[in-house]
Amino acid sequence: MFRRQKAQDEGEKEQLLDEGETESLSDFRPLVVLEFSSKTTPVTREWMKAKIEASKKHGGAELNAKMVVAKDGEERVLLVSAPQERLLHGAEQMGLKKKYKDGSVRAFTFAERQNIEDYTESLEGMLTMSQSQYIIKVELDNIRALETENHIPGCSNPKARLYKGKSLLSRMVSCHLLDKMYPVHNPEQLKRLQHDWYHLHEPKQLMGRQPIETIRGYFGESVAMYFSFLGHYTKALVVPTVIGVLYYLFNESGRNDFVIFAVFNMIWATVFLETWKRTSSEHAYNWGTLGRQVFEEPRAGFHGKLGVNRITGRSEPVYPSWKRLLRIYGVSFPIVILCMLVAVVVMMIYFWAENIAKAKHKEENTMLTKGLVLVPSIIYSVVIILMNQAYRTLAQYLTKNENHREQSSYENYLIVKLVLFDFVNCFLCLFYIAFVMQDMNYLRQSLAILLIVQQLVGQLQETLLPYLLMTKRIKKGEKSGLDHVSKPLHEIPRSKQAEVESLMDRYEGTFDDYLELFWQFGYVFLFSAVYPMAAFWALANNIMEIRTDAFKMCRIFQRPFMEPAANIGAWQTVFEVMGFIAVMTNTALIGMSPEIQPLLEGYTTVQKVLIFVAAEHLIIFIKVVLAFAIPDMPEWVETQMGRIEYQSTQALKKQAQLHRTRWMITSAPSLDNENYNHS
Amino acid sequence: MFRRQKAQDEGEKEQLLDEGETESLSDFRPLVVLEFSSKTTPVTREWMKAKIEASKKHGGAELNAKMVVAKDGEERVLLVSAPQERLLHGAEQMGLKKKYKDGSVRAFTFAERQNIEDYTESLEGMLTMSQSQYIIKVELDNIRALETENHIPGCSNPKARLYKGKSLLSRMVSCHLLDKMYPVHNPEQLKRLQHDWYHLHEPKQLMGRQPIETIRGYFGESVAMYFSFLGHYTKALVVPTVIGVLYYLFNESGRNDFVIFAVFNMIWATVFLETWKRTSSEHAYNWGTLGRQVFEEPRAGFHGKLGVNRITGRSEPVYPSWKRLLRIYGVSFPIVILCMLVAVVVMMIYFWAENIAKAKHKEENTMLTKGLVLVPSIIYSVVIILMNQAYRTLAQYLTKNENHREQSSYENYLIVKLVLFDFVNCFLCLFYIAFVMQDMNYLRQSLAILLIVQQLVGQLQETLLPYLLMTKRIKKGEKSGLDHVSKPLHEIPRSKQAEVESLMDRYEGTFDDYLELFWQFGYVFLFSAVYPMAAFWALANNIMEIRTDAFKMCRIFQRPFMEPAANIGAWQTVFEVMGFIAVMTNTALIGMSPEIQPLLEGYTTVQKVLIFVAAEHLIIFIKVVLAFAIPDMPEWVETQMGRIEYQSTQALKKQAQLHRTRWMITSAPSLDNENYNHS
Repeated sequence: MFRRQKAQDEGEKEQLLDEGETESLSDFRPLVVLEFSSKTTPVTREWMKAKIEASKKHGGAELNAKMVVAKDGEERVLLVSAPQERLLHGAEQMGLKKKYKDGSVRAFTFAERQNIEDYTESLEGMLTMSQSQYIIKVELDNIRALETENHIPGCSNPKARLYKGKSLLSRMVSCHLLDKMYPVHNPEQLKRLQHDWYHLHEPKQLMGRQPIETIRGYFGESVAMYFSFLGHYTKALVVPTVIGVLYYLFNESGRNDFVIFAVFNMIWATVFLETWKRTSSEHAYNWGTLGRQVFEEPRAGFHGKLGVNRITGRSEPVYPSWKRLLRIYGVSFPIVILCMLVAVVVMMIYFWAENIAKAKHKEENTMLTKGLVLVPSIIYSVVIILMNQAYRTLAQYLTKNENHREQSSYENYLIVKLVLFDFVNCFLCLFYIAFVMQDMNYLRQSLAILLIVQQLVGQLQETLLPYLLMTKRIKKGEKSGLDHVSKPLHEIPRSKQAEVESLMDRYEGTFDDYLELFWQFGYVFLFSAVYPMAAFWALANNIMEIRTDAFKMCRIFQRPFMEPAANIGAWQTVFEVMGFIAVMTNTALIGMSPEIQPLLEGYTTVQKVLIFVAAEHLIIFIKVVLAFAIPDMPEWVETQMGRIEYQSTQALKKQAQLHRTRWMITSAPSLDNENYNHS
Repeated sequence: MFRRQKAQDEGEKEQLLDEGETESLSDFRPLVVLEFSSKTTPVTREWMKAKIEASKKHGGAELNAKMVVAKDGEERVLLVSAPQERLLHGAEQMGLKKKYKDGSVRAFTFAERQNIEDYTESLEGMLTMSQSQYIIKVELDNIRALETENHIPGCSNPKARLYKGKSLLSRMVSCHLLDKMYPVHNPEQLKRLQHDWYHLHEPKQLMGRQPIETIRGYFGESVAMYFSFLGHYTKALVVPTVIGVLYYLFNESGRNDFVIFAVFNMIWATVFLETWKRTSSEHAYNWGTLGRQVFEEPRAGFHGKLGVNRITGRSEPVYPSWKRLLRIYGVSFPIVILCMLVAVVVMMIYFWAENIAKAKHKEENTMLTKGLVLVPSIIYSVVIILMNQAYRTLAQYLTKNENHREQSSYENYLIVKLVLFDFVNCFLCLFYIAFVMQDMNYLRQSLAILLIVQQLVGQLQETLLPYLLMTKRIKKGEKSGLDHVSKPLHEIPRSKQAEVESLMDRYEGTFDDYLELFWQFGYVFLFSAVYPMAAFWALANNIMEIRTDAFKMCRIFQRPFMEPAANIGAWQTVFEVMGFIAVMTNTALIGMSPEIQPLLEGYTTVQKVLIFVAAEHLIIFIKVVLAFAIPDMPEWVETQMGRIEYQSTQALKKQAQLHRTRWMITSAPSLDNENYNHS
């Protein structure tokens, strides 16, 4: 019975594809654009097009493709599309989850399409455009070399060798045969999104909700997760801002005992990060990314001897993990430590030079020496920016050199490197001022300058950079005879859209945006005890930040492919660790402030120190207990997940009874037994 | 095709069951014993027997049962058994995992029985006896009331009401109709196990390996996990013991700077606990319990209004979690805090009384006053033991009162209560001596006495208690005319075995054993800096402990039902937290020791304190980094788990394609939608 039904469905599918192929080309709605490099020969390009259109039986992707002419007059741009039914079958293959009419979120199957919440008879609208584009990307990535193919046709590069199961697209990227691959924008949707997101019509919208679900629909989960986190963090800043401003206004005595404020902030950081976990798991449940363990394909840059993946049993490059560990701990780790030491030395030189300049000024007190005092600061600022950029390139090089198999692992190791160095580079001079020089006024002043200047520079970059990119684009466009480049996409004729998008820069992911929040979080929380107004400046910045980031996403960059995300990954840990460091710095700052001493009269200095150590331990204890006590998932999400788990166990049981899993065993590759004799 | 095969298999099964039922009763090998209480009527007992034997279609368990005469001459003892094929089908239903011939551990299915590593044609030996007994227990627990049944037949107790889906056995327990239910011992296996485990033939066996796999086969995972942990901990103690003894022997100057030893111990605690995670995940993988999320049925004592479980969709009592939280934080929490305060007050009274006695002795110095000095210690020791016992009862009462649905949650809340109080009760006087009295010699002395005495009492209890229980059993046995009671089971005639086992006491789980290790771990690690010999005493005790605990399991108690376990649960957290507290106490002790002061000459006292605070933070940082850096699973386990995950995803995809999951959706109960509109 099942057999026959399957055959029937396949028949249906084939028929649908036939229809798709005979569609008149004027109806062709491109979803993804591939731009071959000028190095490619027509043979290679035609071979790739044929592969994309070929049936799965013949190693193809069963998608529709259309070759168009690039600026230089050659047919180097390939538009890829697929009919709705084909995409839905792809969604099923990929294990995409959808919300069903009964409220649960489960793996989508084409057979049950009528039970899906947003089912329509025409099937239109059942997938968001970004999902459709992602499905096409996955299908393209999964076009793999057949046994008979050992070289990319029409390509003389000896590196362009293939082996059975190698992804053709990743090989074309590594041989520089493919320049660009990006999903196209949808001008109408984009216009509506911009309107809801950052077009301010009334001032009351300033703290308004972001349209997270729409953002997710248009840009995918990882971008939506970033903006939701940014929103959650901004909302969380309101409370410290209010308290900080009240302190500022009514603390007329000029005393700086921000003790209660600092203690509140330390606890608040935990509450905010734990409630964020709840929000993020709600998102992840609704988006079908919660608890989804997807087997990760190797990164494009991953290399190694050809072997067998012990998990999938497929051929793929294999790289021994001891070699990777050697590179991490033997190469990267010492270099990172060295860089941090260099940053420390540079900082020491700065303080030393400043002291000399100040002494000179005191001695002579001329206009020249007054100017001289500023020189070290200016040089140091420039050096910091240069070091940051140089280190960034270095960190990327080192992490690439570690040869991680998975993109996620690559990103985590990169985050650790950047965060460690940036911590030293941004915060160490503040630590020096606070705990070595013990000059609280200077600390407050430096903190204010660093925070405000860094934010201003950031905002400028995010408005200046677009302007520069735009001018570049306009120039480029003029060369190619395009005069629409500066206009929003919905004001450009459809036929010119792809060409305009091709000129746009690629969006490199949420990395920089999180790093910016990391700095800000540090400035606000590490030194709350001396400068409560930091929260106010951070809040003001973030309200702007949401808009400039949104503008950047909608107008400056090529649309990115969506990336499934269930949380903010390693950044959660980074912020949590900062929360603990904040407890240490703040209790130390409070303990050192002269205003607190009279309160502890009668105690010896040692006893006072011990009291602060005890207080620090107590606050850390409270934070740990709070982190345990606040459940990471709201109860309704937990119940739903339990229900899905229970049903799938029940399903597997029934199945086992029907003896249907037999094929699973026969298809499992046999592994040698030697590793399992651990008694 | 599948249909037919299924029908065929069912036919096979029925045939097998028929054979089982027509088996001559002399061949009947009992696996599980049920003893009905003297309150039950023959009607109830016969009804239960019929249920156990009835087919699943009629709400039964399809097992074999045989009623035998109890001591009082009534037929109140029910022996339950099942043929091997029936048990294997039960194993499949339960989702039991087995090791396959290809080395992987996956859910067992009867259809693939030939691919299992320990496949035999007769099917004997494919399940361990403890697994067979566990399967029978699960099947018995799963006999549920039909729609037509609303009261236990032959029982006038109004509490004995039933509703559709209520487990009959749990209702019989709550109505005191079922006295005992236990799996029978296997005398031959037990004899061999005893021989391998604790019969010392040569001294070199003293540190020998325990037969963990055999223990697991006989007693199940949770008991095997405890003994494996005990063994791992004992081995880990060897290193501190060696260092401690070396210090003791060669530290002739009499100086007490155990600094290096203490720092080593703090780091060592983390290494030992992290490597234990690896060992435990290896066990769990081999035993098929790793990553196994089983839906937990409600505890026997759980009560609430009859409602619908939102996960399974079945009727069961429902208890709102806000009521539980109210009881936890409103009732239990304040009472626990109060008890801890009482313990503190009692301790203060003890020190006060001792001071008075000492002063009196100094003043008068007679024999009488010399005796008087000992009185407070003696009284305090007795009071501690009494408080401990009283608190234990209270904690159990409070936790029952919290009305947890799951047994695991009940146990976790009980562990937290006991550990909090025991920490105060056992360690607070040592903290007082160390940090308030600051008398290091007195601390060392008290620590030695507490550790050695507590361990001696423990060992005595574990050898005296068996003796007392044995005598009780012999007396009971004599009354019933049994004269074999004191002998090992393999020397008793088969026919008398069940009667002897019925007299044995029930094993209450690994709770007390872990609590004993908790005390010991505290004594050894919290004060390493003053008393390195603690490790030696602990090691000596544990080598004995393994034997006495083993003896207890094999000779004193009824065999327990196996319990699946993937790790040591909340105890892992408890030991980890103790590891962090140890860092604080030890750095404080080192900082306070007068011998360390000359090393820090030239620093002010405040600077010295700050140096120790910095050292403490550094050690905690190292511990946290180590905990992250040591992977919780060995690589081979990780690969295997990834492989299983990958294969099951692939299986689900194939399935989805074949549209076989449709039934899963139609059988899913519909939930109201209102909770899911969180945008």
